Amino acid sequence: MPETVNRQMRLIARPEAGVTPELFELSETPLPEPGPGEFLVRVIYLSLDPAMRGWIAEAPGYQEPVPLGEVMIGFTLGEVTASNHPDYRAGDIVYGRQGWQEWAVSDGGNIERKVDPADGPLSAAMHVLGMTGLTAYLGLLEVGQPKAGDTVVVSTAAGAVGSTVGQIAKIKGCRTVGITGSGEKLRSCLEEFGYDAALDYKSERDLSGALGAACPDGVDVYFDNTGGEISDAVLQHINVGARIVVCGIIGIKGGLAATGPRPNRQLLMKRARMEGFLVLDHMDRLSEALGDLSAWVKDGRLKYREDIVDGLENAPTALIRLLAGGNKGKMLLRVGAEPAGSPASGEAVSFSPASA
Amino acid sequence: MPETVNRQMRLIARPEAGVTPELFELSETPLPEPGPGEFLVRVIYLSLDPAMRGWIAEAPGYQEPVPLGEVMIGFTLGEVTASNHPDYRAGDIVYGRQGWQEWAVSDGGNIERKVDPADGPLSAAMHVLGMTGLTAYLGLLEVGQPKAGDTVVVSTAAGAVGSTVGQIAKIKGCRTVGITGSGEKLRSCLEEFGYDAALDYKSERDLSGALGAACPDGVDVYFDNTGGEISDAVLQHINVGARIVVCGIIGIKGGLAATGPRPNRQLLMKRARMEGFLVLDHMDRLSEALGDLSAWVKDGRLKYREDIVDGLENAPTALIRLLAGGNKGKMLLRVGAEPAGSPASGEAVSFSPASA
Repeated sequence: MPETVNRQMRLIARPEAGVTPELFELSETPLPEPGPGEFLVRVIYLSLDPAMRGWIAEAPGYQEPVPLGEVMIGFTLGEVTASNHPDYRAGDIVYGRQGWQEWAVSDGGNIERKVDPADGPLSAAMHVLGMTGLTAYLGLLEVGQPKAGDTVVVSTAAGAVGSTVGQIAKIKGCRTVGITGSGEKLRSCLEEFGYDAALDYKSERDLSGALGAACPDGVDVYFDNTGGEISDAVLQHINVGARIVVCGIIGIKGGLAATGPRPNRQLLMKRARMEGFLVLDHMDRLSEALGDLSAWVKDGRLKYREDIVDGLENAPTALIRLLAGGNKGKMLLRVGAEPAGSPASGEAVSFSPASA
Repeated sequence: MPETVNRQMRLIARPEAGVTPELFELSETPLPEPGPGEFLVRVIYLSLDPAMRGWIAEAPGYQEPVPLGEVMIGFTLGEVTASNHPDYRAGDIVYGRQGWQEWAVSDGGNIERKVDPADGPLSAAMHVLGMTGLTAYLGLLEVGQPKAGDTVVVSTAAGAVGSTVGQIAKIKGCRTVGITGSGEKLRSCLEEFGYDAALDYKSERDLSGALGAACPDGVDVYFDNTGGEISDAVLQHINVGARIVVCGIIGIKGGLAATGPRPNRQLLMKRARMEGFLVLDHMDRLSEALGDLSAWVKDGRLKYREDIVDGLENAPTALIRLLAGGNKGKMLLRVGAEPAGSPASGEAVSFSPASA
């Protein structure tokens, strides 16, 4: 019996002290019908992201928040079930912005790309075979340009981007050194993501000294997800011709007024490069990048963590757990079943919460 | 009648308060004879450089100073007059380190390169057709990678390197904006070196505002000879994909402990690059670079200033004038005559002190 009802999760209030389940309300509407030039998408996975905290709040100067009473927004993976659009047909898997609902009609405007189910587990398209993996791959290889034998240092080394960077660098024959912020993450770096060495910057009294010991041949590539004092320490150990990929700045305190040691002298002495990276600038290499990432996921060389919760009704509590730091990997909501015959789910290569 | 005497200028005392003529002594020795594997060089030009102040002083932690009683060191252009060396023959013009003397025997170890007299005025091999020109050419084109229509900003814009960078950028079809430190240098930028706009940073109350007005389309390439506050101001105006060539750091106060605004956020937002440059890393392109520089000098598109003093006996007073900032261009001592048939001297394209 075909589905006749669409369940949706709407935002009905703005957070005061924090995010609570009462900010959202589950509602039911008739299943939408695609009009001319439209198609119907059945949502399979919904990505839960820290940025959602901002999307539901009224913060002056930022983007317009989700209007009250509307379906909550979010990135999704779905299956096209019916189509009047020449570029989409039933069975296509699409990554886009269908939001917190089980079904959605689209004219293609809120679809980012089609996903090839042969690339790997469908859920991986939400992270390691999606923007997270592409950021790691293209930032490291395009800007960092590692060569076999290079020493590659990564900050936020156990995070989604960082752990992928470290593993790709290892695949490319580099020595990898991870910088992370807890003993548990340090163990993940060494035991799960294959770093040759790892440091917990919060427990090091002399981070620069520890880095020097972990990088006896100096640093050739630094994938910088933080900036700030962590990066100041790494800069002291760069080699001639080093490449610093500036990918994130969460370690810089003080916003636009932040000051710190000037890097010019070291960049000049070492003829080194600091370069900002945004993945969207490199989409001409998307196909090549996804091909490599897919092969590495399939052969088990590229590991990732995901934390999957079932059922649209559990979206608010899953988001709240994510915002509290209680997730054990990329946080996903399974809104609907994967199509029959989909590749093995991520369990085969990912780390389940229980083993984390 | 062949020469039989070699005149030499020796260092006989170290500077106390400052450099004085009494630190040096002119002496005569018999003309040296090249032994097996050696050749005799007649010095034509001697380069006088600010670094000589350090070479004659005993400063702990720096390189060994010139020993007292020895011939003062310096970069020279000379003519081989007799040779027992398979790679050098009479008539060859050589750039090397023959020091403050009229004649020198060499085994080739202190020769940097042979100079082709067809490249341009011989004196130009000491600056615009030498390391100065190569620094400007290779730094701008290899690291800065300007495209026609780009806006190129240069600090120390009227200096030897900066003025050459500005002119090459103009030849490449860029809009050029020079930053300099006096009204006189500002006029040189506009009237002699062809900058589209120029700023005297010492007279601007709002350097960033003035830069914004001078660069209405933003900054694509910044050739940075200073670092420090000048560069902080330029960074505020860079475009997406901008290239910053870190070539000098004389504007950074405070040595290794110098602090300033962190550039990471701007580099990330603009996906821009800061890269240190040392000309010696790029010598594989020397021949191509000299070919272009030579062509531009000959057709008058690449202008330069030189300040030539005649006679080895005047080397100390010329050095003293240079150290006092009284020179009107690259300071050279003409130790001996150019060979008969040499290309027109620099006067045709350079600016004489009188017209400066």
